[in-house]
Amino acid sequence: MAETPAGRLAALRAELARQGLAGFIVPRADEHLGEYVPACAERLAFLTGFSGSAGVAAILPDKAAVFTDGRYTLQLAAETDAELWECRHVTDDPPQRWLAANAPPGAHIGYDPMLISEEGLARYTEAGLAMIAVAENPVDAIWQHRPPPAAAPVYPHPLEYAGRTSAEKRGDIANALRSAKHDAAVITDPASIAWLLNIRGGDLPYTPVGLGFGLIRADGRVDVFMQPEKIPPETRAWLGNEVSVWPREAMTEVLAGLRGRTARVDPAGSPVWFAQELRRVGASVANGTDPCSLPKACKNPVEQQGAREAHLRDGIALCRFLHFISLAAPEGGETEMSAAARLLACRQEAARFQGESFPAISSAGEHGAIIHYRVAPASDRPIRPNEIYLIDSGGQYEDGTTDITRAVWTGPDDPPHSVREHFTRVLKGHIAIATLRFPSGLAGPHLDAFARRALWDIGLDYDHGTGHGVGSFLSVHEGPVSLSRLAKPVALAPGMILSDEPGLYIPGQYGIRLENLLLVQAAELAQASKPFLSFEVLSLAPFDRRLIAPALLDAGECAWLNAYHARVLALIGPILNAAERAWLEGACAPIL
Amino acid sequence: MAETPAGRLAALRAELARQGLAGFIVPRADEHLGEYVPACAERLAFLTGFSGSAGVAAILPDKAAVFTDGRYTLQLAAETDAELWECRHVTDDPPQRWLAANAPPGAHIGYDPMLISEEGLARYTEAGLAMIAVAENPVDAIWQHRPPPAAAPVYPHPLEYAGRTSAEKRGDIANALRSAKHDAAVITDPASIAWLLNIRGGDLPYTPVGLGFGLIRADGRVDVFMQPEKIPPETRAWLGNEVSVWPREAMTEVLAGLRGRTARVDPAGSPVWFAQELRRVGASVANGTDPCSLPKACKNPVEQQGAREAHLRDGIALCRFLHFISLAAPEGGETEMSAAARLLACRQEAARFQGESFPAISSAGEHGAIIHYRVAPASDRPIRPNEIYLIDSGGQYEDGTTDITRAVWTGPDDPPHSVREHFTRVLKGHIAIATLRFPSGLAGPHLDAFARRALWDIGLDYDHGTGHGVGSFLSVHEGPVSLSRLAKPVALAPGMILSDEPGLYIPGQYGIRLENLLLVQAAELAQASKPFLSFEVLSLAPFDRRLIAPALLDAGECAWLNAYHARVLALIGPILNAAERAWLEGACAPIL
Repeated sequence: MAETPAGRLAALRAELARQGLAGFIVPRADEHLGEYVPACAERLAFLTGFSGSAGVAAILPDKAAVFTDGRYTLQLAAETDAELWECRHVTDDPPQRWLAANAPPGAHIGYDPMLISEEGLARYTEAGLAMIAVAENPVDAIWQHRPPPAAAPVYPHPLEYAGRTSAEKRGDIANALRSAKHDAAVITDPASIAWLLNIRGGDLPYTPVGLGFGLIRADGRVDVFMQPEKIPPETRAWLGNEVSVWPREAMTEVLAGLRGRTARVDPAGSPVWFAQELRRVGASVANGTDPCSLPKACKNPVEQQGAREAHLRDGIALCRFLHFISLAAPEGGETEMSAAARLLACRQEAARFQGESFPAISSAGEHGAIIHYRVAPASDRPIRPNEIYLIDSGGQYEDGTTDITRAVWTGPDDPPHSVREHFTRVLKGHIAIATLRFPSGLAGPHLDAFARRALWDIGLDYDHGTGHGVGSFLSVHEGPVSLSRLAKPVALAPGMILSDEPGLYIPGQYGIRLENLLLVQAAELAQASKPFLSFEVLSLAPFDRRLIAPALLDAGECAWLNAYHARVLALIGPILNAAERAWLEGACAPIL
Repeated sequence: MAETPAGRLAALRAELARQGLAGFIVPRADEHLGEYVPACAERLAFLTGFSGSAGVAAILPDKAAVFTDGRYTLQLAAETDAELWECRHVTDDPPQRWLAANAPPGAHIGYDPMLISEEGLARYTEAGLAMIAVAENPVDAIWQHRPPPAAAPVYPHPLEYAGRTSAEKRGDIANALRSAKHDAAVITDPASIAWLLNIRGGDLPYTPVGLGFGLIRADGRVDVFMQPEKIPPETRAWLGNEVSVWPREAMTEVLAGLRGRTARVDPAGSPVWFAQELRRVGASVANGTDPCSLPKACKNPVEQQGAREAHLRDGIALCRFLHFISLAAPEGGETEMSAAARLLACRQEAARFQGESFPAISSAGEHGAIIHYRVAPASDRPIRPNEIYLIDSGGQYEDGTTDITRAVWTGPDDPPHSVREHFTRVLKGHIAIATLRFPSGLAGPHLDAFARRALWDIGLDYDHGTGHGVGSFLSVHEGPVSLSRLAKPVALAPGMILSDEPGLYIPGQYGIRLENLLLVQAAELAQASKPFLSFEVLSLAPFDRRLIAPALLDAGECAWLNAYHARVLALIGPILNAAERAWLEGACAPIL
């Protein structure tokens, strides 16, 4: 019975009663509060059946509800048992309000302090709820056959890719901590630990990190909390004497050593457990962001060169794939899944390729209008003649992370003018970002609109940000910068890598998204009396000329496009075989 | 002796000792914390000699300092006695830090709770200072010959200009208060009181308001606290039975009636006295913005039509002035002051003109590069041939407030190409804003950059926001919206009036600023699936064609400029005399 949805919920309620709790919340989160979650932390899916990437369940003795956002409303209803779970919208009808309305006043509502941030918890306590931290997660207590924690080996990320030694990075962070008068900082983002210590791992799909926690001190020494079996001897040696490695269980003891000291914890990005534990042992908690976050985002010259080289290899794979699609699509023999597999095969031929940087969005026709579409056997469909095929994909290479989107017309006929107008207006937005020059200090919320203006002119828009930060052989979605109105304004700075991906989605018909990665560079401008920045385009693949309406491009946009295509041809053409090269020459021929 | 700067400071210190205070702060503010301050509230200028529009003094027994921002650094040093006053930068070296460094720990520092907001006060208390509210301002105690409070009569603002009755407005605000579960809201902005009650006054230069405070209740009744002699019988009758008028002294008693109730106070915009007093009498204080702020910003159809008509009359005055300048400037006989007087005379011929909306910035040549330049006899200089003359001015009309800036070439020779390039790039930025179409929900920080891109392209920029809100026969600088990166993002909405005024300032040479007022309108776009907005241009005067480099304009920009000039000519031409009309025909002739 415990292996049916009803049995699991009943078992959890029994466990809550045993722990003296009137309720409990189950967020879709692991202990690092990141985007990807290992199988052992998929508690929400285990309990409710809901497999979306964002959500939270709230359980009371006689009611239970699952909350998610607009992307997953339909999926939530389809995957959960309506007899057991109410389905709610997480912002319109948030879990704290549902709990406050349905639990008796003062009822003890449990939460796992490793799965929620201090700011996340505050939303519950500010709603008047009596929130109780549990020592052991009650879902784990009833989870039979729970997958073991990920335990892939952690390996060195050599200096030829990392560009700077861990000692140099640790010295910089230690300086920053001393300036802020902080004795230490808690690091809970595995990507920050990977960057700081020049290591990579395999605990998560798509993001090459080892899961663990860290503590960096104002003298530059680092404590890493990671299962010891994940750290082979050569990695231990690589970490050096200034880095101490501890099993996870030692965390409480090491934090206790901060009694009387000041430790920085990120109230939005780190589990609240750390601040609670530090206060418990008599340390002072300073709210602050992860000190690795900003320096990690600013790639050093070696990482920048690695990004260029990784993008060249990725561009070769993509051009080969686009050539293949140009031949196969008009015939109609491929499907979304077979095309994605073909693209992966093209990438697997590339040197230093380590895997995809996220699950490819391979979507034909009307599927392209589903922004977060993920092809699966049940949804797979043929790529048909005379429609738009949208492919958003990326690779993890030892020297860089890629992410690129193209929308192509499958032919053999010409696309209707309305489709070309839509494509061209998205392209104008893409070019408007790529060609920007702007003063240092500007942030994503100030620049995002440039990508939308050509769409706004005819009353169109897209319902996502224009771009996100990208790591260096790390997370394909990396903070703290983005090109989005909704993000906190963090100034763009040289060395940051951002995506430029405006789109347009016509429900039931097609989607268009045109994405390159851009590298922020200092701009040399003769009249400038202050620092200016501009973008270097990293991604290399043609935009489908058949979908462009040249009359809608101004002279500057045309010049940019022709120069970009000439660069793609010059860099990639010589590496292709004769048939591919002939295709690329046509695909990169000047417009007008 | 009390009438020398040293005597005043000594007298203040004696008064502080008498009140048992170790120190005191004197902000440049009145009890409404607004931009313009009546003479009786110019305590900072009285005490220190510093006459800038932003600053604060901090006085301790043996030291004293005045703090201001970068605009006034030189003026502060020139106007104050260095023997008495240290001069400090208000953000680099703020008064709370100076006080914390120079006062003994725990020393009682006095402040006038009517002259600082709750958020302003928090900056001092968060610096660890023991801040003591004074019952009587010690500066007033020593201020001999202090000007009496302004007491101009308050008069009705009739429905033909206001568009909606006060009862309707009060009903809407009352609804908003009930939705927020607030029993009342404190209103300390005289412009909000003027808007809410459809009254205007004459207590301040440039802004037609009567100074006073208000309290609006969730049933729509309003208490106004204003010297009774300012309210003639016909105004009292106009206010009606739902509005109670009280002398200022009754405020404490009326607030005491809110014991046990919840009252909204703006922690950033209202004096902290109100929150302190409400808490003292046992009321609950809810932080929130002035409930009139947003509805006041969204002009109703009658106000919109009034704005159009006021701008037509203002445009006639400006065109007559520009014609005059076109003849006089090449001869070199005018000065900055004589030109400003001439422009005022042109406006005074217009119907419903009530005065300037701010002191005109009439600046020739290198003076134009001083963004906040204000001509005075000591700085006045001739307007010379072959330079740029910048004129930023506005009028208060009963049916609307105007604000317009033009930069003209005085001739007779043609301007150098570099000057035309600068002017044209500013104009491109101006047009980029004027022609925007954008979805509802966008705010100033997201749009400001469009005005800068053509300058950024060659490494140039300007160090001010692109635009501010404008009232309807009210403040020429009106919140809560603006076109500025630094402002809180408040969504633009139909009926709002904003300035569009990019500029460029070449120190020691010239300044360029091109400003029209824009009215936000719902945009009708065929493909739109959500509400879109666009701008209607209100201001009517030509941009100097001699300063435009047509080759730098794209086709859309050219079309906008020609259509705008054609509209100016069509609306204003028929009203001018023959010589003026002939000039305007040339000034509005198509480019290319």
